[in-house]
Amino acid sequence: MTETSTVSTTRFDRGFELLRTVGGPAAERFVDGLADIAPDLARLTVEFGYGDIYSRPGLTLPQRQLINVGALTALGTAAPQLRFHIDGALNVGVTPAEIVETIIHMSVYAGIPAALNGLTVAKAAFADRPDAENPIVLAEMSPEETLAQRYDRGLDALNRIDGEAGHQVVASLADIAPDMARYIIEFAFADVYSRPVLDLATRELITIAACTAMGTAAPQLRVHLHGFLNVGGTRTEAVEAITQMAGYAGFPAALNGIAAAREVFAARDAEADSE
Amino acid sequence: MTETSTVSTTRFDRGFELLRTVGGPAAERFVDGLADIAPDLARLTVEFGYGDIYSRPGLTLPQRQLINVGALTALGTAAPQLRFHIDGALNVGVTPAEIVETIIHMSVYAGIPAALNGLTVAKAAFADRPDAENPIVLAEMSPEETLAQRYDRGLDALNRIDGEAGHQVVASLADIAPDMARYIIEFAFADVYSRPVLDLATRELITIAACTAMGTAAPQLRVHLHGFLNVGGTRTEAVEAITQMAGYAGFPAALNGIAAAREVFAARDAEADSE
Amino acid sequence: MTETSTVSTTRFDRGFELLRTVGGPAAERFVDGLADIAPDLARLTVEFGYGDIYSRPGLTLPQRQLINVGALTALGTAAPQLRFHIDGALNVGVTPAEIVETIIHMSVYAGIPAALNGLTVAKAAFADRPDAENPIVLAEMSPEETLAQRYDRGLDALNRIDGEAGHQVVASLADIAPDMARYIIEFAFADVYSRPVLDLATRELITIAACTAMGTAAPQLRVHLHGFLNVGGTRTEAVEAITQMAGYAGFPAALNGIAAAREVFAARDAEADSE
Repeated sequence: MTETSTVSTTRFDRGFELLRTVGGPAAERFVDGLADIAPDLARLTVEFGYGDIYSRPGLTLPQRQLINVGALTALGTAAPQLRFHIDGALNVGVTPAEIVETIIHMSVYAGIPAALNGLTVAKAAFADRPDAENPIVLAEMSPEETLAQRYDRGLDALNRIDGEAGHQVVASLADIAPDMARYIIEFAFADVYSRPVLDLATRELITIAACTAMGTAAPQLRVHLHGFLNVGGTRTEAVEAITQMAGYAGFPAALNGIAAAREVFAARDAEADSE
Repeated sequence: MTETSTVSTTRFDRGFELLRTVGGPAAERFVDGLADIAPDLARLTVEFGYGDIYSRPGLTLPQRQLINVGALTALGTAAPQLRFHIDGALNVGVTPAEIVETIIHMSVYAGIPAALNGLTVAKAAFADRPDAENPIVLAEMSPEETLAQRYDRGLDALNRIDGEAGHQVVASLADIAPDMARYIIEFAFADVYSRPVLDLATRELITIAACTAMGTAAPQLRVHLHGFLNVGGTRTEAVEAITQMAGYAGFPAALNGIAAAREVFAARDAEADSE
Repeated sequence: MTETSTVSTTRFDRGFELLRTVGGPAAERFVDGLADIAPDLARLTVEFGYGDIYSRPGLTLPQRQLINVGALTALGTAAPQLRFHIDGALNVGVTPAEIVETIIHMSVYAGIPAALNGLTVAKAAFADRPDAENPIVLAEMSPEETLAQRYDRGLDALNRIDGEAGHQVVASLADIAPDMARYIIEFAFADVYSRPVLDLATRELITIAACTAMGTAAPQLRVHLHGFLNVGGTRTEAVEAITQMAGYAGFPAALNGIAAAREVFAARDAEADSE
């Protein structure tokens, strides 16, 4: 294909180069696989998904791959694409351990079945790469830790990450399901958020992407937008992650995510002004 | 089975005739497949799904099949039923190209993975009908079109379809994610809505069905109810499409869709009164 | 493994014993299957899912299994886990007929495709247990019943179960989609809720779990929380069912379910005070 000055070729070329970076040999297979039924969808995916969205600044390719892995695990309806993006993550330098941690992280937001089914896809992907690094991560355990200590450790993490918004969630459960609050502190924060390999900002970025894609977790999306900004994430990164979901979960999901971000940013601006 | 005057037989007979029209030989297979585990669910599906819902006036069988194809593609959780209704669409005169366009249209509302997985099902269905028409549709491309022209073309389409409601969406993004607004105009409207084969009213009808079924897109459902009425759709057709979703995505989805329709119709009545 | 006094071992041991009660030989297979990719997720599932959640008082093991079967059927994204919990239900004394009824019940809340796909999983599970009881349940039919009688029978059931909240739903449809109201009364209440094998409280408990897990049915979740309490369910059971969903559909789903419960309990308290 000779380089021309037309817009569509430019977007396509830029997109296809990126698709090849991410997908490797699967890039050609993707385009070929649609040739006999919907070649235009291949073109639109390359132009919009890669030429427009993926080529944007604001997030690195490994970040973009990790949020895809998280969101597609959470959705639970797109195993072939999850496989593509697990391979893609490996292709752009993400480690197997980071992929596995991302999937485990999803157990909090989409449930344990979603995480288990995501791991089944990851296992198949790793099996096809015998030279891939060991994916196994074991959280450090303190066998002598008491339940009270675990609770305190979780509460510390909750404080550090979600701050005021997290406390409101816990407080709101006191008169109806106090054990739910305890599980948030213990399972979500002491067990999962405290795991190694992914830093807190990455965990919150993946959470933002997954809650946006699922479309059923608006209050939690707001809490974790606050959390992401609390642990050093930027508004630009949050908006980028939400924007990327337009391609993976549709425009309604992304638009409703942006609406949540607008609320959170306004709340933080108002608080900053009043200080 | 001898004809009797009982209500249930009547609904069953009416439903089964319709199921046979849509499903062809798959109709019997459907009923037989449940005989050893839940024969009553086969009966209820025939009576309620076909005897009650499908036999209603207000939408044609091809329209009913297209919104099923769209909604089941968007849900992403019902591949066997998507296959049944792709076959059913072909059986009642829908063309392969219309089916493919419906699935591509879903990339906007449920994401590109949902569309890709829908196409995988369509491909298998078409492969079993060697005499089916060619499904391939290529949108007309103007290789000399500039980004600015594409944007203007998308904006024209947005104006024509979603009017005021579409503009509010775009305006609301200006201060937080202006590129999301650009993607709506360029990808959703210049690329997808402007494609051939399906007219705008059909695209909006499918959008209404899919947003109802997903249950995660209430603001967008309202926008596209306006859009559907703007491009010549009727309130009756909209209510019919939403009602049909009770069978495919459950009563909560349909009831929440009706609530959105009520809001939109009231808003339009109020505006008409004030003019 | 020798018994120690550490917290984690205790939670793990308690959880694993319960997992073994539910899963039988599948319990070991579950843990082994994660050993080479994410052994910590196996540990967390045992500790949190079984040691914390499943071992709670408030619901019996058969109740816990039935709501899992219902919720995983409704989600439609977790066939392997649905299979595990159908086997698990049989292991703790649930009958095949109760499982089938639970799945049929889901056709109202998640659509007929969800129910059909759930039955496919159940069929495979029953096939592997040749000695399982016959799953077939046939609702008593009155072949002479007229449509009007069926409607009255459904309305009686609606009155008994959802009371005022159900009537508001029906009334709200009168000016826009009166046939939707008729289908609720006829299909949901005369056909499905009136079926044998599961009592009304069990049907409503499963409905609460499924609406919580789907996360797209907040108004209906409130209606059926009222319904559950109207037919003899307790607030504790409702909160338990919602809490359990944290493990199967994620914390956002459970937290939003608790928010609905808080509203319903407050409304009932306010009404009790005003009487």
